Amino acid sequence: MFYCPTRIIFADNAMQKAKEYIASFGKRALIVTGKNSAKQSGALSDTISVLREADINYALFDRITENPTLDIVMEGKSAFLQNNCDFVIGIGGGSPVDSAKAISLAAANSLNRDEMYNTSVFKKAYPILAIPLTAGTGTEVTQYSVLSDPLTKKKAGFGCDLAFPTLAVLDPKYTLTLPPKVTLHTALDALSHLLEGLYSNQRSPIVYPFIYKGIASIMKFLPIVLSKPENYLAREELMRDALYGGMVIAQGSTTLQHSIGYPLTSFYGIPHGLANAMVMEDIMELYYPAIQQELDDLFSYLQINKDNFYTWLKSLPFERKIDFSEDFIDKAIPQIMSSRNMALNPLPVTEQQVRTLLENLRKT
Amino acid sequence: MFYCPTRIIFADNAMQKAKEYIASFGKRALIVTGKNSAKQSGALSDTISVLREADINYALFDRITENPTLDIVMEGKSAFLQNNCDFVIGIGGGSPVDSAKAISLAAANSLNRDEMYNTSVFKKAYPILAIPLTAGTGTEVTQYSVLSDPLTKKKAGFGCDLAFPTLAVLDPKYTLTLPPKVTLHTALDALSHLLEGLYSNQRSPIVYPFIYKGIASIMKFLPIVLSKPENYLAREELMRDALYGGMVIAQGSTTLQHSIGYPLTSFYGIPHGLANAMVMEDIMELYYPAIQQELDDLFSYLQINKDNFYTWLKSLPFERKIDFSEDFIDKAIPQIMSSRNMALNPLPVTEQQVRTLLENLRKT
Ligand SMILES: [Fe+2]
Ligand SMILES: [Fe+2]
Repeated sequence: MFYCPTRIIFADNAMQKAKEYIASFGKRALIVTGKNSAKQSGALSDTISVLREADINYALFDRITENPTLDIVMEGKSAFLQNNCDFVIGIGGGSPVDSAKAISLAAANSLNRDEMYNTSVFKKAYPILAIPLTAGTGTEVTQYSVLSDPLTKKKAGFGCDLAFPTLAVLDPKYTLTLPPKVTLHTALDALSHLLEGLYSNQRSPIVYPFIYKGIASIMKFLPIVLSKPENYLAREELMRDALYGGMVIAQGSTTLQHSIGYPLTSFYGIPHGLANAMVMEDIMELYYPAIQQELDDLFSYLQINKDNFYTWLKSLPFERKIDFSEDFIDKAIPQIMSSRNMALNPLPVTEQQVRTLLENLRKT
Repeated sequence: MFYCPTRIIFADNAMQKAKEYIASFGKRALIVTGKNSAKQSGALSDTISVLREADINYALFDRITENPTLDIVMEGKSAFLQNNCDFVIGIGGGSPVDSAKAISLAAANSLNRDEMYNTSVFKKAYPILAIPLTAGTGTEVTQYSVLSDPLTKKKAGFGCDLAFPTLAVLDPKYTLTLPPKVTLHTALDALSHLLEGLYSNQRSPIVYPFIYKGIASIMKFLPIVLSKPENYLAREELMRDALYGGMVIAQGSTTLQHSIGYPLTSFYGIPHGLANAMVMEDIMELYYPAIQQELDDLFSYLQINKDNFYTWLKSLPFERKIDFSEDFIDKAIPQIMSSRNMALNPLPVTEQQVRTLLENLRKT
C-alpha cells in the first residue's frame, strides 16, 4: 500500500513556487501558528507576501503552543468560521500543522470538543497548506493529528485521509536557525518514523528505499548540523529525511516505539522526539526477533551492524533517564496498552515488557 | 516536487484488498481492455468477481490494441456514456490504462477527437482504476496518456493531473505468464523511466531513492526473470521497479530518450520499451556531460561504472538495428524536435545530434 495525496513542493524559495496552487484554494486563509518561530524563520512573512500577491486575505491565529489541546482547536475552529475562511495554513513544527488539520476538520464538519478523535463523523475538510519549520514530525505529509486533552492528561492522535494536507511547502532555510536541542529532538523523531516503517506489521516495502536513504542520511548529516547549524545542504538533507519519515508512517502508522513516549510527554513535558529516542535501543532489542530480516537488510545497506547503530545513538547529546514520581508507571501503562498503535507492533508486547521499558528510563 | 495522488495497492491478491475502495466509485463500471491478456492473466475474472461482490454492474469494452488511437478512445467514450457508467477500469499493459484515462476525460468533458491533446479543456474526470498486467509503463501512477493519430502517424502524449488513476491495483501474479519479449521490452521501458528521473531538467531528488533501488533491482532481477519466467519474487521486484518508474516520470516527465522512440514505434511498430532501449547507450553518452554528477552518484550506489552498465545492456537479447526507408529520418526529425519533452533535456540537443542518433540505428 502507498498513499500520499499531498502535493509536495520542496525547494529553496518554495513558497513562491507554491503560489499558483495556493491561489486555487480560495480567497480567505486562516494562518495557524505559534508566537515565535513562524516570525523568526521568515516563513510568516514569506507566506503573507505570497498571499498578498495572490490577492488572498488572511486572519492570523497565532496561539498554538507545544502539544496543542482540544480547547485551542475549538478556538481555531471559531476563528476560521468567524472569518469566513476557505482554507487553513499551518506554519510551524508539528503542533501548528496538527492544529491546522484539526481546525479544518472541526470547521468543515461542525465538530465539538468531544468529537475530535471520532473520525467516523469526519466527512469533508477545507484545503490544508502545511509549512513545516522543523525537520521532524513529517506531519506535512500524513493523515495524523496528535492532540492533548488537559482534562484527562491524554495525548492521542487521530488518523483520517481527509487530514492529509493538500499542499506541503518545505523550504530548508526555515530550519537554519533552529536551536540545537530542537534540531536534535526533531531529527530523532524523524529517525523513529523511518524505523517504524520497518517495525509496523503494516509495513510497506514500496517505501523501503525512503527508509534506508533517510536513516543513512540522518546518521551522516545530523552530527554535521549539530556542529554546523547553518550548513544549508545538511539542513536540506534532514528536511528531506523527515519528509520521508512522514511518508513512511502515513503507510504503516506507528507502534509502541511511539505510544510509549506519549505519557512521557504529557506527564513530564519530555519533547516528543526525545521521548522516542530514549527508548529507541530497548525497542529495537524488543522487536528484533520479529524483524531480524528487515533490520539486517537495513544494516547491510548502511554497511554497519546493530551495535554500531547503538554506538552512534549513544554519541548524541541527550538525556537517557528521568525522575519519575512513584505512581507514574502505573498511570502510564493503561494509556500505553490501550493506544491504537499497539495493534501494529511486530510481535505481541505484554504489560510487563512495557513496565520494564519504562523502569529502564528511571533515574536511579 | 512530488505528487502522486493515486492510491496504490500492491500485493498478492490485491484486487480483493481493493474492494472497499472500488465500491466507493459508483455502481456501474466500464472495463477497458484488450482481447487477450486480461483474460489469460486472470485479472479480468478477478475484477469481475470483486465487482459482483461489491454489487457493481459493468460493461466490457475489450477493443484496445497496442498504440491506442484517438478513434478507439471516442468509441470508448460512447460506450461509457451509453452504459451510464460511474467509473472506468483499465486492465492491461500501457494501452488499456492510457485508453481508460482518455475515456474518463473524454466522457467527463464531452471531448471530441480533435480535443484529446488539449488539456486546457479538461475540467473533471470520472474515477479511474488501473490494473497493470505488465511491469513497464508505470502508467498506473502517472498523469500521462499516449495516444496515436492514424491520420497523421503521430504518437504523442498528454499529461494532466486529472488523469492520475484514483486507484492502482498491482498483483505480480498477473505478470507470471508474460512472454519473454514483452517481459524484456517492458522492463527496459521501466529502466528508461528511472533514468529519465536523473536526465530531466525537472529532476526531483525526493525520488532518487526509488530511482537507485529500481535500477539496481532491474539489473539484478531482469536476467533472473528472463531465465525463470515463473519466479514470483523476481516478478514482484520488477513490478515494483516499474511502479517506481511511473512515480518518477510523473514528477519530471521524460526527455528525448522517450520522444526519439515514438516515430520508431509509429512507423515501424518497434515496441515502445525496445525503442527506448535501442538508443539508451547513445542517449546516456549524449547527456553525460550535463549530468555527470547524477550518473556518477547512481553508479557509485550500484557499485559499477558506466561501461559496466553498457556491458549489462549488451548482454540482453534485443535487436539494436533496424531497416529504415530512405525518407524515415527526414519524416521523424520534425516530430521529435517538436515534441513537448525536448524542453526537458538536460542540455540543448540539436537536430544534427538527433539525426546522428537515428543514423546509428540504421542497419548497414
Ligand atoms: Fe513522531
Ligand atoms: Fe515509457
